[in-house]
Amino acid sequence: MREHKPDKGWKHRVHEIIYEADTPMGKWFDILLFFLIIISVLLVMLESVRWIDAKYHRTLFVLEWIVTVLFTIEYIARIACIKKPQSYIFSFYGIIDFVSTIPLYLSYIFAGSQVLLAIRAFRLLRVFRILKLVRFLGEASQLKRALVASRAKITVFLFAVLILSVILGTLMYLVEGDEAGFTSIPTSIYWTIVTLTTVGYGDIAPITPQGQLIATIIMLVGYGVIAVPTGIVTVELGKQGKGDKAAGGNHFVHVNTQACTVCAKEGHRDDATHCYNCGSKL
Amino acid sequence: MREHKPDKGWKHRVHEIIYEADTPMGKWFDILLFFLIIISVLLVMLESVRWIDAKYHRTLFVLEWIVTVLFTIEYIARIACIKKPQSYIFSFYGIIDFVSTIPLYLSYIFAGSQVLLAIRAFRLLRVFRILKLVRFLGEASQLKRALVASRAKITVFLFAVLILSVILGTLMYLVEGDEAGFTSIPTSIYWTIVTLTTVGYGDIAPITPQGQLIATIIMLVGYGVIAVPTGIVTVELGKQGKGDKAAGGNHFVHVNTQACTVCAKEGHRDDATHCYNCGSKL
Amino acid sequence: MREHKPDKGWKHRVHEIIYEADTPMGKWFDILLFFLIIISVLLVMLESVRWIDAKYHRTLFVLEWIVTVLFTIEYIARIACIKKPQSYIFSFYGIIDFVSTIPLYLSYIFAGSQVLLAIRAFRLLRVFRILKLVRFLGEASQLKRALVASRAKITVFLFAVLILSVILGTLMYLVEGDEAGFTSIPTSIYWTIVTLTTVGYGDIAPITPQGQLIATIIMLVGYGVIAVPTGIVTVELGKQGKGDKAAGGNHFVHVNTQACTVCAKEGHRDDATHCYNCGSKL
Amino acid sequence: MREHKPDKGWKHRVHEIIYEADTPMGKWFDILLFFLIIISVLLVMLESVRWIDAKYHRTLFVLEWIVTVLFTIEYIARIACIKKPQSYIFSFYGIIDFVSTIPLYLSYIFAGSQVLLAIRAFRLLRVFRILKLVRFLGEASQLKRALVASRAKITVFLFAVLILSVILGTLMYLVEGDEAGFTSIPTSIYWTIVTLTTVGYGDIAPITPQGQLIATIIMLVGYGVIAVPTGIVTVELGKQGKGDKAAGGNHFVHVNTQACTVCAKEGHRDDATHCYNCGSKL
Repeated sequence: MREHKPDKGWKHRVHEIIYEADTPMGKWFDILLFFLIIISVLLVMLESVRWIDAKYHRTLFVLEWIVTVLFTIEYIARIACIKKPQSYIFSFYGIIDFVSTIPLYLSYIFAGSQVLLAIRAFRLLRVFRILKLVRFLGEASQLKRALVASRAKITVFLFAVLILSVILGTLMYLVEGDEAGFTSIPTSIYWTIVTLTTVGYGDIAPITPQGQLIATIIMLVGYGVIAVPTGIVTVELGKQGKGDKAAGGNHFVHVNTQACTVCAKEGHRDDATHCYNCGSKL
Repeated sequence: MREHKPDKGWKHRVHEIIYEADTPMGKWFDILLFFLIIISVLLVMLESVRWIDAKYHRTLFVLEWIVTVLFTIEYIARIACIKKPQSYIFSFYGIIDFVSTIPLYLSYIFAGSQVLLAIRAFRLLRVFRILKLVRFLGEASQLKRALVASRAKITVFLFAVLILSVILGTLMYLVEGDEAGFTSIPTSIYWTIVTLTTVGYGDIAPITPQGQLIATIIMLVGYGVIAVPTGIVTVELGKQGKGDKAAGGNHFVHVNTQACTVCAKEGHRDDATHCYNCGSKL
Repeated sequence: MREHKPDKGWKHRVHEIIYEADTPMGKWFDILLFFLIIISVLLVMLESVRWIDAKYHRTLFVLEWIVTVLFTIEYIARIACIKKPQSYIFSFYGIIDFVSTIPLYLSYIFAGSQVLLAIRAFRLLRVFRILKLVRFLGEASQLKRALVASRAKITVFLFAVLILSVILGTLMYLVEGDEAGFTSIPTSIYWTIVTLTTVGYGDIAPITPQGQLIATIIMLVGYGVIAVPTGIVTVELGKQGKGDKAAGGNHFVHVNTQACTVCAKEGHRDDATHCYNCGSKL
Repeated sequence: MREHKPDKGWKHRVHEIIYEADTPMGKWFDILLFFLIIISVLLVMLESVRWIDAKYHRTLFVLEWIVTVLFTIEYIARIACIKKPQSYIFSFYGIIDFVSTIPLYLSYIFAGSQVLLAIRAFRLLRVFRILKLVRFLGEASQLKRALVASRAKITVFLFAVLILSVILGTLMYLVEGDEAGFTSIPTSIYWTIVTLTTVGYGDIAPITPQGQLIATIIMLVGYGVIAVPTGIVTVELGKQGKGDKAAGGNHFVHVNTQACTVCAKEGHRDDATHCYNCGSKL
């Protein structure tokens, strides 16, 4: 869909490679970047494993630097080749890219024995690089839309769950003593949420009969209540699914119910400019 | 939708501020109240944390009193400015407001070293203040409707789960001995519900092969059964969702299938008096 | 719908009371029976609690006998007043009633110090009395229908889960050693199901990195897989829900898609003989 | 649908027995094979239970050999009677069959004290025989289709969950110390997934207030997020359910929305060649 003229500025070409994926080089760049991010995240993980860090500290450190330098080049390139740099710099990924590149440098500015731990924290921020991967998931958009659509309801729901947790947590704190682990209301609330969400660690568990009775009620409530977010999301997805069916695609596309003025066909893609049925302008 | 005449009694103005949210002052009052409730709940929580209470007892106590006094004023104001006080006093929130204001005073009436704990219980009732927050969630209404609609079914379901739990619990009590923690049938039933609801604390767990076999069956049953409440709520939400789609709103509105007598358009809001399409009286 | 003639045999009257609930006495009988069952189940539970049994053994024993006698009378009455006794005796509830009445008597026939425990087992069977309660739940029918409709699918699903569990369980047995609790393949399979169903007791948990990696995969699989039974039941309920909507009832009724021969109205109750719309014979 | 001519080669007859199930002998063969697989899997399991293996080693070993020989015969027969052997050999079940037959023989080729464990591993592969059982589940096809249809979405979803887990896991590693069990980022990620999927072993659990706070957030996120795969699968099943309803079958059939050119009836089976309504060629 994009024609390639021989006389394009290097900026345009670089932009094409970095920001787009519909040219061979663009594809390769994205794939390379993908693996670079994976590696950088694995590095952070491995460093955190005591014995690995002890054994291969040097190697990890070197790889660490290579990755960081490559990310720096990418970051500069992104700024260089774009027309409005600020539009990238202050975009979600612009910030992510910056935050995930800087830590290693910072660890030299804020050198010193005391702040080492804080620096480790900085460096761990690089894990956020993984967020870049989302870029490669176009499919995600529809899921996101469904979640956004049910945002309001899920908020209300979580809020209701929180209120419930506060009340039930307080109740359990009064019923169960310290020996069961219900040392304070916040802890009891923590336990209540652990139970309501059916996680159930068991680090804290009721021991008195009345406590176990209340716990049972909480569980059954949680059992009935776990249905709600599922219901919400399912309905949202269902709607989009119906739209999809109208569009007849194998994988979901979001469509609107706007009808073609010529053929009155419904279920056009949100980004449609012509009717997919008769081709008349919408 | 409400016209503001200059000559309104103070009662009316106060009523407007306290009970309504469509005037600037009304909005501010609600927001203020919101944070007051949050603070009052946090106070109760913090008091329950041993070391915090030990350190900041005085501060918490003072804040406690400030909150209580403010709530008292609000409570009196609510009664003063309403035409039929009893309609508020004996309403759900009227009782909540009273119960969440009184404890601190009660702690002086029923003074004495022995009843201190009981008093703590009283004071903790103030946690119910948080229920007031629900007031601020109009969105909740639709979720509530869906849950109410599926009330009957969920009751039946929970009842079936209870029966199942009693039978399976008894079975486990016979199969597993005391050393596994199945000391009595009630305890075994507690464990069964913990398992069926997939909470799984692990404070009690089968150790004999046959016990583990039954546990496995219980889990798979629970796995198949967890679907039911979800299904029920999803269907209910789905119905309302369809109604919503008809009304075309972005966030759910409950609509009926009554058709306009003029334009026969369907999906009017339950509270609609005119057709949203042609405006003709319904 | 049933006319009351003065000259009916006592059998008919008793039958009316025991088997039906549309006469005042029939209602009272059912309610009485309901509480009798609850009491009998509570008795079995309480007996199993050591300290309660030790303290109130005599009382429990007497109540035990009263309940058993009453159930015996009921059982005999049910047989006496019905035209075809065998149709009751060999019905589901007929067997339940018998099995839940006999144990106490059996405990005298098979007296002896060694068989005491076996007798306890017998007596515990009385818990199955609770199944009678299902009788009082007309609402349950629709849930049952949905579950029956999705029976085939859920069977297939559970079977697939079992296969998966066997393979993954074996894998974990090879990866994790005894010290982690994976002492044999059956135990590992038990653990896998505990994990797949998101119960997660924690009595057995992987400790090696590779074991935790596989566990993570199992969890994510279970996470994706837990959706299936829910989906199945939801779809089934949804269908019936649609039918319900057609019938326009507030609580679910099962309707068929048969159309009236006169007014072609759809969504008649399964038990309908006339069109609910035009009243013409179906 | 298949006519039986008297003069068919033995290959054809054997093929009929082994590969098909619509002749009496074919049915019997399948049922026999079914039980053989179950037995072979049980054998592997029992061998892994220490005390059983110690007691019945000889018996298990003999049965082991019988099963293996029978499977070998089956495998050869399958190759012998088919026209294009390679089409079977390199098919999914062809490989499964081979892999699940060979281990016992291999255990003699690679004899030696050191490789014993590896051999056990080989032998355990025989568990994969159970996969053959899937053959007997026609019903599974529709579930499979629904899962395949939602494959893309579930992948995206699981990927998002992984990213989330990495970030939250890292956060927990920074917040919680070693004493809580968060010894490294990978371990923390393991814990995060255990929590997000609501499995909650409790082998690792936060102990610091801030850690418990983050854990609470993770749980509520997981609570809202568990809805997504369910929603996806439900929608997929729902679509197929609708199709099914159109086809009016009691158990699901996948139908397309293609309309008959003669009677315009919709909802034909994917494999339909004639309209199920008017019989005209599609």
